[in-house]
Amino acid sequence: MNPNSNNPKTITYTQIVDLSHIIDPNMPIWQNDPLVEFETVAELEKDGYYLRRFSMGEHSGTHINAPNSFYEDGVGIESYPAQSLVVPAIVIDICDKTTANFDYALTTVDVLNWEQQHHPISANSVVLLYTGWQEKWGDRRAFFNQDEQGKFHFPGFGAETSRFLIEQRAIAGVGIDTHGVDAGQDETFSTNRLVLEKAGIVLENLTNLDRLSPSGTTLVIGILRLRGGSGTPVSVLAFVP
Amino acid sequence: MNPNSNNPKTITYTQIVDLSHIIDPNMPIWQNDPLVEFETVAELEKDGYYLRRFSMGEHSGTHINAPNSFYEDGVGIESYPAQSLVVPAIVIDICDKTTANFDYALTTVDVLNWEQQHHPISANSVVLLYTGWQEKWGDRRAFFNQDEQGKFHFPGFGAETSRFLIEQRAIAGVGIDTHGVDAGQDETFSTNRLVLEKAGIVLENLTNLDRLSPSGTTLVIGILRLRGGSGTPVSVLAFVP
Repeated sequence: MNPNSNNPKTITYTQIVDLSHIIDPNMPIWQNDPLVEFETVAELEKDGYYLRRFSMGEHSGTHINAPNSFYEDGVGIESYPAQSLVVPAIVIDICDKTTANFDYALTTVDVLNWEQQHHPISANSVVLLYTGWQEKWGDRRAFFNQDEQGKFHFPGFGAETSRFLIEQRAIAGVGIDTHGVDAGQDETFSTNRLVLEKAGIVLENLTNLDRLSPSGTTLVIGILRLRGGSGTPVSVLAFVP
Repeated sequence: MNPNSNNPKTITYTQIVDLSHIIDPNMPIWQNDPLVEFETVAELEKDGYYLRRFSMGEHSGTHINAPNSFYEDGVGIESYPAQSLVVPAIVIDICDKTTANFDYALTTVDVLNWEQQHHPISANSVVLLYTGWQEKWGDRRAFFNQDEQGKFHFPGFGAETSRFLIEQRAIAGVGIDTHGVDAGQDETFSTNRLVLEKAGIVLENLTNLDRLSPSGTTLVIGILRLRGGSGTPVSVLAFVP
């Protein structure tokens, strides 16, 4: 990939869909993550403008993870080139499976079935997994779905499937509408590790995935270049054909 | 403007340029604004992943301002439609003027001269003002350039020029590489008020404006939808033809 290539590229779209949740102190936060805080620091009448301080975790709300979050020598989010943040996306809908099985993990057979219905997944795509979890965002308990032992029950990518997508399809990354690309039962963060080993894209807590077509969408990922950031809340705009 | 229009639109580009600065505790901050803070909350060895809390002001770094920052009944940044964040941009270079006059404010004559050299500014454009201040980002004193009375000396848009651009050219908004679209000497924030009265786009602390051509660029502005936000740090990606 040559980022300075002079070959013109084109994004054609009829609609722009925002895949990011509103950031709010009441939104679901991962256990032990910092609270979302808003603090007024300047007031219209007194200071001539209204302004707040905000504080939150680097992996809260709709966010992207960086390699240094899982690898000692991994880069921070500020080093992602602009070109790597504009990527084609395909959407795999597994809502029918997750209704019956909260722990459902995407299989390679699911991927092959999707390809048979649509087309081979092209290199440098981001694979978005629509699990239906976006509808549970307003209900923290349902969203994390912890059992009595504190174990999480939400769907995600299976580790072997992610390995297949990376090695056999050369994808740019993954995204999901749950809090983790790794299913809640995977406590080793396999998919995060596999994708971030190659400084790929990991998007979590996405929304509006139901509004995307299975393929043809381009994502423009707007990051905050937090110096040394383990990730950052993001704007994800989907340009839908 | 019908955001649900089915007429396909196209962005053609050869390069993507990030117009946002890296966010760093040492970057220049407006007086009395909150410090940029990073705090480690989870560590790789102990917790299985590395994660920080970050805290900053809504108008720090490269950022966008919202109407509620200047109007009691103005909306917060979370209510900007996705479509309004994808806009054509033109760039007016006034570096030759600001070298001699730190207080230089863009005039209507400057705008008309630009139009004569290029083309009439089309409706719904964002007008970016390249003052050369982006080069001073690493030097807080030069960037704010306060005199002994604490008054700021940096260039910006003249109020009457902004009124002309809004009323006669129907622009979508403005952006600049200084900390304020209003020149430092304008303590009433005239341009902010004029643009935000119509819930337009105000971008401040931009960088890399020297890498854009005078016209033909499309901006994709990635906001954090902070609930009730007076603004937010932003990703501004320029798609350059």
